[in-house]
Amino acid sequence: MAASSTANASGAITGLAVSSRSSPSASHADRLAVPASAAGLALGARSLVASSSSLRFHQHGLPRIAARRAIAVKAAAVETLQTAAAEALVEKSINTIRFLAIDAVEKANSGHPGLPMGCAPIGHILYDEVMRYNPKNPYWFNRDRFVLSAGHGCMLQYALLHLAGYDSVKIEDIQQFRQWGSRTPGHPENFETPGIEVTTGPLGQGVANAVGLALAERHLAARFNKPDNEIVDHYTYVILGDGCQMEGIANEACSLAGHWGLGKLIAFYDDNHISIDGNTEIAFTEDVSARFEALGWHTIWVKNGNTGYDDLRAAIKEAKAVKDKPTLIKVTTTIGFGSPNKANSYSVHGSALGAKEVDATRLNLGWPYEPFHVPEEVKNHWSHHIPEGSALEAKWNAKFAEYEKKYTDEAAELKSIISGELPAGWEKALPTYTTESPADATRNLSQQNLNALAKVLPGLLGGSADLASSNMTLLKMFGDFQKGTPEERNVRFGVREHGMGAICNGIALHSPGLIPYCATFFVFTDYMRAAMRISALSETGVIYVMTHDSIGLGEDGPTHQPIEHLISFRAMPNILMLRPADGNETAGAYKVAVLNKKRPSVLALSRQKLAQLAGTSIEGVEKGGYVISDNSSGNKPDLILIGTGSELEIAAKAADELRKEGKTVRVVSLVCWELFDEQTVEYKESVFPSNVTARISIEAGATLGWEKYVGSKGKAIGIDRFGASAPAGRIYKEFGITAENIIAAAKSL
Amino acid sequence: MAASSTANASGAITGLAVSSRSSPSASHADRLAVPASAAGLALGARSLVASSSSLRFHQHGLPRIAARRAIAVKAAAVETLQTAAAEALVEKSINTIRFLAIDAVEKANSGHPGLPMGCAPIGHILYDEVMRYNPKNPYWFNRDRFVLSAGHGCMLQYALLHLAGYDSVKIEDIQQFRQWGSRTPGHPENFETPGIEVTTGPLGQGVANAVGLALAERHLAARFNKPDNEIVDHYTYVILGDGCQMEGIANEACSLAGHWGLGKLIAFYDDNHISIDGNTEIAFTEDVSARFEALGWHTIWVKNGNTGYDDLRAAIKEAKAVKDKPTLIKVTTTIGFGSPNKANSYSVHGSALGAKEVDATRLNLGWPYEPFHVPEEVKNHWSHHIPEGSALEAKWNAKFAEYEKKYTDEAAELKSIISGELPAGWEKALPTYTTESPADATRNLSQQNLNALAKVLPGLLGGSADLASSNMTLLKMFGDFQKGTPEERNVRFGVREHGMGAICNGIALHSPGLIPYCATFFVFTDYMRAAMRISALSETGVIYVMTHDSIGLGEDGPTHQPIEHLISFRAMPNILMLRPADGNETAGAYKVAVLNKKRPSVLALSRQKLAQLAGTSIEGVEKGGYVISDNSSGNKPDLILIGTGSELEIAAKAADELRKEGKTVRVVSLVCWELFDEQTVEYKESVFPSNVTARISIEAGATLGWEKYVGSKGKAIGIDRFGASAPAGRIYKEFGITAENIIAAAKSL
Repeated sequence: MAASSTANASGAITGLAVSSRSSPSASHADRLAVPASAAGLALGARSLVASSSSLRFHQHGLPRIAARRAIAVKAAAVETLQTAAAEALVEKSINTIRFLAIDAVEKANSGHPGLPMGCAPIGHILYDEVMRYNPKNPYWFNRDRFVLSAGHGCMLQYALLHLAGYDSVKIEDIQQFRQWGSRTPGHPENFETPGIEVTTGPLGQGVANAVGLALAERHLAARFNKPDNEIVDHYTYVILGDGCQMEGIANEACSLAGHWGLGKLIAFYDDNHISIDGNTEIAFTEDVSARFEALGWHTIWVKNGNTGYDDLRAAIKEAKAVKDKPTLIKVTTTIGFGSPNKANSYSVHGSALGAKEVDATRLNLGWPYEPFHVPEEVKNHWSHHIPEGSALEAKWNAKFAEYEKKYTDEAAELKSIISGELPAGWEKALPTYTTESPADATRNLSQQNLNALAKVLPGLLGGSADLASSNMTLLKMFGDFQKGTPEERNVRFGVREHGMGAICNGIALHSPGLIPYCATFFVFTDYMRAAMRISALSETGVIYVMTHDSIGLGEDGPTHQPIEHLISFRAMPNILMLRPADGNETAGAYKVAVLNKKRPSVLALSRQKLAQLAGTSIEGVEKGGYVISDNSSGNKPDLILIGTGSELEIAAKAADELRKEGKTVRVVSLVCWELFDEQTVEYKESVFPSNVTARISIEAGATLGWEKYVGSKGKAIGIDRFGASAPAGRIYKEFGITAENIIAAAKSL
Repeated sequence: MAASSTANASGAITGLAVSSRSSPSASHADRLAVPASAAGLALGARSLVASSSSLRFHQHGLPRIAARRAIAVKAAAVETLQTAAAEALVEKSINTIRFLAIDAVEKANSGHPGLPMGCAPIGHILYDEVMRYNPKNPYWFNRDRFVLSAGHGCMLQYALLHLAGYDSVKIEDIQQFRQWGSRTPGHPENFETPGIEVTTGPLGQGVANAVGLALAERHLAARFNKPDNEIVDHYTYVILGDGCQMEGIANEACSLAGHWGLGKLIAFYDDNHISIDGNTEIAFTEDVSARFEALGWHTIWVKNGNTGYDDLRAAIKEAKAVKDKPTLIKVTTTIGFGSPNKANSYSVHGSALGAKEVDATRLNLGWPYEPFHVPEEVKNHWSHHIPEGSALEAKWNAKFAEYEKKYTDEAAELKSIISGELPAGWEKALPTYTTESPADATRNLSQQNLNALAKVLPGLLGGSADLASSNMTLLKMFGDFQKGTPEERNVRFGVREHGMGAICNGIALHSPGLIPYCATFFVFTDYMRAAMRISALSETGVIYVMTHDSIGLGEDGPTHQPIEHLISFRAMPNILMLRPADGNETAGAYKVAVLNKKRPSVLALSRQKLAQLAGTSIEGVEKGGYVISDNSSGNKPDLILIGTGSELEIAAKAADELRKEGKTVRVVSLVCWELFDEQTVEYKESVFPSNVTARISIEAGATLGWEKYVGSKGKAIGIDRFGASAPAGRIYKEFGITAENIIAAAKSL
């Protein structure tokens, strides 16, 4: 298969060179060689440099080598002609990208044409000359990853995926840009469009995702590669703009990338000097390259990103040669390149050009085609990516077959990571507890679970934002993932919550079997909420280990005590908010978290010791809410007490007291509202019979939202103010989060 | 008053020099001059350098000049003795700070002794030698500001405030460190402890607050200073640690500080190489000083922060001489300095030393005193700050009196900013609307309000995170606050939401009359939530202008469409979540926001046009919820429809339809839940009569929480999934946020 596609690809290229010499559109190509340099356009000194190096970067595909050999034997005159034609074709391809973006935004009358117009050369060179991928299998494991951190420029990606032959972006999809139900939404969404690696748009997230993707590659390569078989070997490319650079999350993630020395991460900084509010001079005058050098990156500056194709190619070559550092290629571009009146201005950033300016741009760039037209020679040229990609994957498959023969155990582990299939019986590793087990903080019980699971889940890795010994997240059988020990699984994120979350999104989306977890104090989810929302939206199975989950943390005081956080995650779509009460529930929470591969889980865990309760179970947690004790019959208790996490114990105590006084009392653990709401009506009725309106909830957090379960006649005991600095027991008492208060409330109902 | 305090201060100093030579504690002072250099302690090459420069920095206080003159005339021998004694006293003062921290943490058995022990020299030099403040009036306008960004080290601040003579921190308060009801909570809280400028603890916030404080000084100085009267003139000092440096928010804020050239901002980076998880080598190997240089800062490195007092003094002098750039002084210190076995390790970061190590530290540093003891000579020495502070303020008051005579109008404005008293009749500037007024987006109506208010509120200033033209936040009569035009009021934050929020907290806490507003898309509150929570906790009146508040933004899609955000702020304590429906309600929202000086406001505003509704009013908004239309009598409608913001119009339309069918329908605008909940029981009953259970709410956001108002028998129409990319009208229809859906729901009830 590899051989036959070699012939195809090689033929396609030769054919191309010929057709562009003889086709009627050659005149356009000639015109394009010296485009009209419109007034107001900062095109740089050079317009178009003819060069044979456009093929230089096909390092990996055998077909390209054959093609180069074929070219080398031709006569010099033919070669010169061919080279000029090849460069004209590059220009035409780049303009195709530009006009697909222009036309799609124009039709939608909504979107961001500026970035695709300015970054089309980077996009072309990456997708046509540099990257290894298989359009017919966007999920091929060893593909190069590309992230558009400046996600608003997504028409760049859609245009590239379309040209490269991905089935997810047909020309009809591009025509449906930003419309209901289309595969070309307003920002790139991995869950809508195969070929999109991660969901971007909120600025700074993408570059942090890219750090996660590169971390995953580095880690897996270190774990699985053998001297005779480098089975894991790909690059991660990212384009980020001025906006991404200003966001703190980008600095956090890039500081880590520098620390880890992620040499196969190559970032293009689209230095176009324009953001929505105008010239970046008004708010962004730092020396970005110097900052990246301080962060431990290699930096390169391509001064003419508009037409300096060879400079771009040389920069990528240089970046690849630097193995021990990530590289930032600052590429100075003109936003909206080609638009005579709007280029280099904020007006081209986020609005359609308008019919008149579209016409002017067509004229300026010598583009006589109808909207959405892809010239035949461009189509022909890009057609080699389908056979080539297929050959790349086939070659890798053969390599993997060899690997499997020689390294059976490693291959099985790697396979599980690639496929996401969990090892049979993995859940048996979950620890279980009895009421005799010692009282313990759920953060400690969490660590028992993590360590038990790490033995059976080859893709489990993660760490904390400098709170490993408080969050209890260290995997004891592994060392630290560091520059010198990337095969290890304890990731040290430093105090960088936001970067941590987004890096975990990147890890999760690298391979279905990677299960990243990350940790901080629950209140500091406020620092990383934007990344967590992207976890939820983009269907990653990240596990958020959030300890110190209430006033129960005590003396650190209100800055550290979450109040509104439980409800704020319960309201977020597609994320599970779990608050286990003891050992069995913590194990249940981990079971749920591991099984929900397309839905992140937030585990709220206590700092303080909690008793192992009677009636709790893994199965109960899987239902989200369940009865842990009841002395009533016929589904008619006098009273239902509902608790979560550390307050379930208080509810159980209050129930004991009330039962002594002759009441029938049911105690419900509502450990995960989202899972409970998914149960059948019958099951829900069996837990909360509609005719029992005497219901009291207790939770050391905001009461808002609890009306859903306690109803208009019930009572929610909670905290609707900020916390306080004092020993935990005192705060619980002062705030009325006590069995006594439940009993008093019960009597008032 | 100034003169008499001159005499006092001068006398106190002379007395000191004598008493330390002759008092019984002089032997301690001698011992301290060469402290036992314990094994494992990185003390640096020098132990204690005698110097006369300890007084060098009293630049501003006349008393100090007199004292220095008095000293200068003494004989050389006496001077040498005095100098040695003075330095011994400095050492003793520094150790007093250390042991107050050690003892308080030990007694509480909770807290962070490491930073105060390492940063005591910086603290001493700042509070004793450099800063201008008045302990008896912590709110004196022209005081130097100090921020401990590494808030966990708050015992440093409490010790300094105590020594300086602040009434808020008596020795009994220090003994109650981290206890219920004390004024010395686990992290510094401005609302608990006068003398604390801002609330810190969550890392990175403090340094961003400091940028806000320095911005406020720069702005007010540019607006009000005259060549003959520089009435606004103070520095802002901040200590930040490795943790703060890792946080993205710090990079955002410091990038802006560099851009703005805030020369009177001086930051001490406590470079102690230790964070909670151990040596910073595991996660933080960037070159911090190089990064700050890239951000446009001046940088200095004090290599021996433990005992290099003169180096610290020289660094501060150098920093002050650099007028056009903020300065980062990297101070290499030993965390837990003085503890023989725990210094320079993570174990001293966040736990009490333990009795044994406390004893060992006492021995090592030559500290024979009981816990919480402040040696008499230290007390005596610090006692000059009360008269000196009083003199400083008196002098400034006299200066202001002169200013007022000459510059009456400016003085009135500045007074209003200093006092926070709103100009009489300011609210008359709020625009009003009738149902005839054109339909408009509330983001545009918001801009009308901002521009109207800027004319009457001298302290109103703010801007957007690079979305000024989308958030509609530009004040048209003002230019941009920039390095060269700091008197202007439009602040350009760049794409730095988190830094923006924290900078606004600093501005708000600089002076009661400063009213900062800041803006981005509502969904991106996720980026700045940690700063917004500190706004709420620390009682700032920041106005958050959050536009594009629902799926109504359309094509940008789910990454940009808030869903859970309304409920997540409604659950946050001490913050007002307002969602106005039209012009009058937007004006009402601004009235509420301006009046709530101790409670921030979040205004959720539409991108799309909304009709001016009948029945809306400013007064209604002030009640949080009110009836905008009703065709029932006797407080008994058949049905209550409840809407907020852009959906109130839909509710009103549905009501019209239902009334045509003969129903009695009440429409309620629930524009601010928090304000509504504060109304009397009678008022609430007049809006939501308890016997009317047929209630339907409509809001383009999560339904969770609405049970509170619609009750068990009502229905909440909303969105419990992520949004979609399409034109807004289509999404509203697809998601069922329509009058038709309300009518159908009404019929089902």
